[in-house]
Amino acid sequence: MTNHYIRLLALALCWPGITQAQERLPGGNQQRQLEQRFDKQLSSTHIGETIQSLSSQPHHIGSARGKAVAEDILQRFKSYGWDAEIVTYQVLFPTPKERVLELKSPTTNKALLKEPALKEDATSGQAGQLPTYNAWSADGDVEGPLVFVNYGLPDDYEYLERAGISVKGKIVIAKYGRSWRGSKPKVAQEHGAIGCIIYSDPKDDGYYAGDVYPKGAFKNEYGVQRGSVMDIVIYPGDPLTPNIGATVNAQRLDRLQAPNLLKIPVLPISYHDAAPLLKSLEGPVAPEEWRGALPFTYHIGNGKATVHLKLQFDWQIRPCHNVIAKLKGSELPDQWVIRGNHHDAWVNGAADPISGLAALLEEAKAIGALHREGYTPRRTLVYCAWDGEEPGLLGSTEWVEDHAAELQEKAVLYLNTDNNGRGFFNASGSHALETLVNDVARDITDPQTNVSILTRKQASDALKAPTAKLKKERLAKKNLAIGAMGSGSDYSSFLQHLGIPSLDYGFGGEDAGGEYHSIYDSYDDYHRFKDPGFQYGVTLSEAAGHTVLRVADAVNLPFDFRRLYETVNGYVNELAELAAGMRESTAIENQLIQEQKYQLVTDTARHLLQPSPKAEVPYLDFSTLQNALVALDTTTQTLSSRKNHTGAAYDKALYQAEQQLLYGNGLPARSWYKHTLYAPGFYTGYGVKTIPGVREAIEQRRWTEAQEQIAVVAAAINRLTVHLNGL
Amino acid sequence: MTNHYIRLLALALCWPGITQAQERLPGGNQQRQLEQRFDKQLSSTHIGETIQSLSSQPHHIGSARGKAVAEDILQRFKSYGWDAEIVTYQVLFPTPKERVLELKSPTTNKALLKEPALKEDATSGQAGQLPTYNAWSADGDVEGPLVFVNYGLPDDYEYLERAGISVKGKIVIAKYGRSWRGSKPKVAQEHGAIGCIIYSDPKDDGYYAGDVYPKGAFKNEYGVQRGSVMDIVIYPGDPLTPNIGATVNAQRLDRLQAPNLLKIPVLPISYHDAAPLLKSLEGPVAPEEWRGALPFTYHIGNGKATVHLKLQFDWQIRPCHNVIAKLKGSELPDQWVIRGNHHDAWVNGAADPISGLAALLEEAKAIGALHREGYTPRRTLVYCAWDGEEPGLLGSTEWVEDHAAELQEKAVLYLNTDNNGRGFFNASGSHALETLVNDVARDITDPQTNVSILTRKQASDALKAPTAKLKKERLAKKNLAIGAMGSGSDYSSFLQHLGIPSLDYGFGGEDAGGEYHSIYDSYDDYHRFKDPGFQYGVTLSEAAGHTVLRVADAVNLPFDFRRLYETVNGYVNELAELAAGMRESTAIENQLIQEQKYQLVTDTARHLLQPSPKAEVPYLDFSTLQNALVALDTTTQTLSSRKNHTGAAYDKALYQAEQQLLYGNGLPARSWYKHTLYAPGFYTGYGVKTIPGVREAIEQRRWTEAQEQIAVVAAAINRLTVHLNGL
Repeated sequence: MTNHYIRLLALALCWPGITQAQERLPGGNQQRQLEQRFDKQLSSTHIGETIQSLSSQPHHIGSARGKAVAEDILQRFKSYGWDAEIVTYQVLFPTPKERVLELKSPTTNKALLKEPALKEDATSGQAGQLPTYNAWSADGDVEGPLVFVNYGLPDDYEYLERAGISVKGKIVIAKYGRSWRGSKPKVAQEHGAIGCIIYSDPKDDGYYAGDVYPKGAFKNEYGVQRGSVMDIVIYPGDPLTPNIGATVNAQRLDRLQAPNLLKIPVLPISYHDAAPLLKSLEGPVAPEEWRGALPFTYHIGNGKATVHLKLQFDWQIRPCHNVIAKLKGSELPDQWVIRGNHHDAWVNGAADPISGLAALLEEAKAIGALHREGYTPRRTLVYCAWDGEEPGLLGSTEWVEDHAAELQEKAVLYLNTDNNGRGFFNASGSHALETLVNDVARDITDPQTNVSILTRKQASDALKAPTAKLKKERLAKKNLAIGAMGSGSDYSSFLQHLGIPSLDYGFGGEDAGGEYHSIYDSYDDYHRFKDPGFQYGVTLSEAAGHTVLRVADAVNLPFDFRRLYETVNGYVNELAELAAGMRESTAIENQLIQEQKYQLVTDTARHLLQPSPKAEVPYLDFSTLQNALVALDTTTQTLSSRKNHTGAAYDKALYQAEQQLLYGNGLPARSWYKHTLYAPGFYTGYGVKTIPGVREAIEQRRWTEAQEQIAVVAAAINRLTVHLNGL
Repeated sequence: MTNHYIRLLALALCWPGITQAQERLPGGNQQRQLEQRFDKQLSSTHIGETIQSLSSQPHHIGSARGKAVAEDILQRFKSYGWDAEIVTYQVLFPTPKERVLELKSPTTNKALLKEPALKEDATSGQAGQLPTYNAWSADGDVEGPLVFVNYGLPDDYEYLERAGISVKGKIVIAKYGRSWRGSKPKVAQEHGAIGCIIYSDPKDDGYYAGDVYPKGAFKNEYGVQRGSVMDIVIYPGDPLTPNIGATVNAQRLDRLQAPNLLKIPVLPISYHDAAPLLKSLEGPVAPEEWRGALPFTYHIGNGKATVHLKLQFDWQIRPCHNVIAKLKGSELPDQWVIRGNHHDAWVNGAADPISGLAALLEEAKAIGALHREGYTPRRTLVYCAWDGEEPGLLGSTEWVEDHAAELQEKAVLYLNTDNNGRGFFNASGSHALETLVNDVARDITDPQTNVSILTRKQASDALKAPTAKLKKERLAKKNLAIGAMGSGSDYSSFLQHLGIPSLDYGFGGEDAGGEYHSIYDSYDDYHRFKDPGFQYGVTLSEAAGHTVLRVADAVNLPFDFRRLYETVNGYVNELAELAAGMRESTAIENQLIQEQKYQLVTDTARHLLQPSPKAEVPYLDFSTLQNALVALDTTTQTLSSRKNHTGAAYDKALYQAEQQLLYGNGLPARSWYKHTLYAPGFYTGYGVKTIPGVREAIEQRRWTEAQEQIAVVAAAINRLTVHLNGL
């Protein structure tokens, strides 16, 4: 059966008279048959072999093995029948030359800064491992008093201020968790710290959380989370080439002028290395929420414990090898459905990123097999394996910046994955694609429970709801709400810089552990604790593959702007409630301060200053935003009652609708981020802020800016409405 | 100025024309002058000396030193000019003969069961200390598999059931905290356990909470909390003589038939001794809420770790020496204002109970001095120092049972204190006395902040409120709500058995530590961490002394039944909400179970069974209770608009009003507790349950009983209304 025959049949089945579910499914029953043939090509055994093979050696960006992995992937794509090439950029990537961390007083201790090999983990003793470090730490040789700052969040510094403790000229030690690691040195630097140490407390992913590796999955005392501390909320990618591709001849910034690089040194350490430092601290006992699971009392510090931190890096420009594979569409070759996952790892990276990459390659293998049998998608498929994601989404960002105009013309969808595990289906992305995600998830079976991955996820959402009322509401919901995208993987440049409709998929929730970015993220760890049997690898291939194929083959592109409208309407309600809540709490806090209640209640032995009063929260005018939503409501209602408008131009108008939500000037103080609905939080890093211009202005009490941003977002929504009215 | 002169002046000042505050203050300005003279007699230095002297040696019930302390107190009262005597009862009190706790497999370890002497604590190495044990443990010699049961609450056993783990025939290890210690072996026994170990986790009052003794106030690795595990929620006092005084010739139960004694052995241990036991456990990882601060992963157990527990006690009848001191009233000698605090301690007991006792003795000294200067209270004062409180309120309960009829005739008020510390004023008791407590607290200055103890407590209540809305509400409140009484000190028999209006006072919140019931509850600990300078000792004397004197001298006894009405009305609303909330959550949980959501969501690697469905919650008829409250509303409104009805008979009707709230048959399954509004919780122990007959029937899903108890409480409230109408 040829592709053309299938296509014609599919078109025939799309006309009125068939059921709504079939109608919604691009290609109807024929597409389902294609999916069944696709699924038959997927092999959990092969996914396991891919994971073992590609994670068999350390393969970070710039390493010989990293290049070999890219070439291996290239060959795989080619062997599956895809047109594939390696597209290389030249990016800055620092590696450590010298790392010293010493406790100098009241006692002395030198940190190990080394994860030991384990006999239970075959790859843990290999050569070529990157040492434990944070990429984009500044070079530095500093010595000073140590201060414990909890998770290093802005709120933690508010507490320190009340405790009368400044970090100015000092070295802070912060726990991993709660915020993106890069936020910790950034906030420390904002407060005048001269160095930053980040450690993994056993309460968060060590023995408190569960048995430690190799007995269990959690962090043993030597495990260290490597990771980037580039300020990706300003912009990701090569820090020297914002907005443009890091080609050989690209114009580059002076590194010391790059606005997303730190000025202070920062180093991640294990709890083995953190314990003597924390134990040496005196001064106030840390508040209860600050305390971890090390077996002593946590103190904040009183200046007597001092540390020496010396870090020097090799700041080289290195090649960044993206692998780009294409399968040209039969009917609409200039409409691209893009699928990506990175291939670089901090060390072996069996989970991060190889588990997701193995699923992607399995899809490419299956589609290649279908292609050999005669199937060609209507639209072009672009499968990507990105390099340099770990240091800051380097490979994907440079490629996207380099192909910005073409992508804004051609890209229908970008579907991302990254590390994958066992458990529940997590999907986030553009809300106009929420209906598509629901339809896909409804048809895929969870390997552990034999219900659909949609049903299982909905059950989890219902059970997790904190109150009976919310449980009831969630049980009654027929559709799964997808999350909004922050950052932390390769979708950022597609969605937030270019406005390409994007999704991110993964499974998890039953695969917790402490291997993240350590040498123990290995095949030995993965097959014991993450996805034994690699069944969720297959399930991820199914979810991503079906999504790609449905979009690629769709006669009516499955955008549903009603879901977008309803989601944004919810966000606007949240913003109004946020401002109202802050108004109420600011008023009452100011009254408590004015009436000296804090002074009356504060334990006189603890010497906590009362908080400073804050300016009262003005009423904001949300009306432009609300009126914009009324118009979008009407338009999307009309649109959803129309059917079957097809053709390349109509398609293009549909997938370019998301671009109407971009604002050319970008977000305040970070113009690279142009999407008015989604961005990583300025202080949360990976964590999303929806309608970020307004939300962050409110949260950070910049009222004039909040009002301005309401207008910016309202204008963007109005552009979308006008655009949709033109359909 | 003679007492009579003051009295006449006071009467004169009470007539209309004076301000309301003066009006409410029994005796008006003259009483305030008396209070000022009283306050001048109080000495923080003397309170410190009393604490040091009376806590200088271990002095538990039945010990030679315990008797000597009673005699010392007797001499003090006499020297202050009071008529005092020692009133002795003969009570059962077990002390250990043999204590063995051994880990038998997978490794072996013998528990120390010993708190070491510290050079920083002068009394910690003395002879005569009671060993670490739980009084009223059964004799036993058991060996079996060990199971970790978190805090040993009924909910914890629900989780164990889901995990498929039975404690039948096994020995459980539970953490101290969350419930009264006696509930832990009781619930374990109900589930078939053969032994129970209770330990203090460092997360609760050890190094996680703060620096450990002697550096700081919290529990070092060897500290052990002794304590009673008598089932005082059935009845307190000598277990052999419920309802009657334990006089020499009293008829006694056979110990093995006493319904409030355990059948299984139970032993408290330190975290030093607990660590090897907990570390030896395998099987499922304990749920997050179960985990403590020891530096390893907490497991529940899989049967492989076994322990041997052997305990033998000396079950002797011992003398229990209460000291009763009286100062006869000038006008109404048969109306008694009773004040009490226990004198026995587990070991030295500087905080518990001597800090409260020292304040009581300071009051007696001051009143004695005023008496020498010519003052005599209108009503009789009865100051009591109870023996045997620690094992189960023995001394107070036996005295109260022995004098039940006389007390129900004469007792206007029982005001209790126990251990005292630094911080905020805590008051609980009969809500008809709430206005009195507010008036007293408004006039007493907090030694740290120089505002009234009322203002400071209200500031704390406002700051602690979890939401802006609640903060606002609490800020707006003019009056302090007093707590309801559960159990855990000597007020139980007065209030809950006889219906004597009762109060309990104390200061705390800034004096946390881990010394409770250990050898480290010493003078050295107390003056460093509890109430340095003994200023709160003076403040407690003021609060209690002013209350006693105002009631003793009152022309109009300061009962305010409006506050009682409003409080009970609040409780009834809570009960209706409790039932409605359970109805909603039961329905939704049953739906989740029926739709197999738990099975879909449960991690297949964790093998948790889904919960069992529960019977749906029927609608209860609260109308009898609501109608009773309408009548009480009207009556108390009328009553509060009347003034100045005086005379002995009127007084008596006022203070006997609380007795109308008793129900002769008592609470279901625990007839000793007769008050329909206040009781210790059947499973919380010390923690109060208000309107306990109804509340516990609802909580424990006994719907017929809940409906019956609504009628019982409604009838009690109607009795009160009729009684008040008769005034």
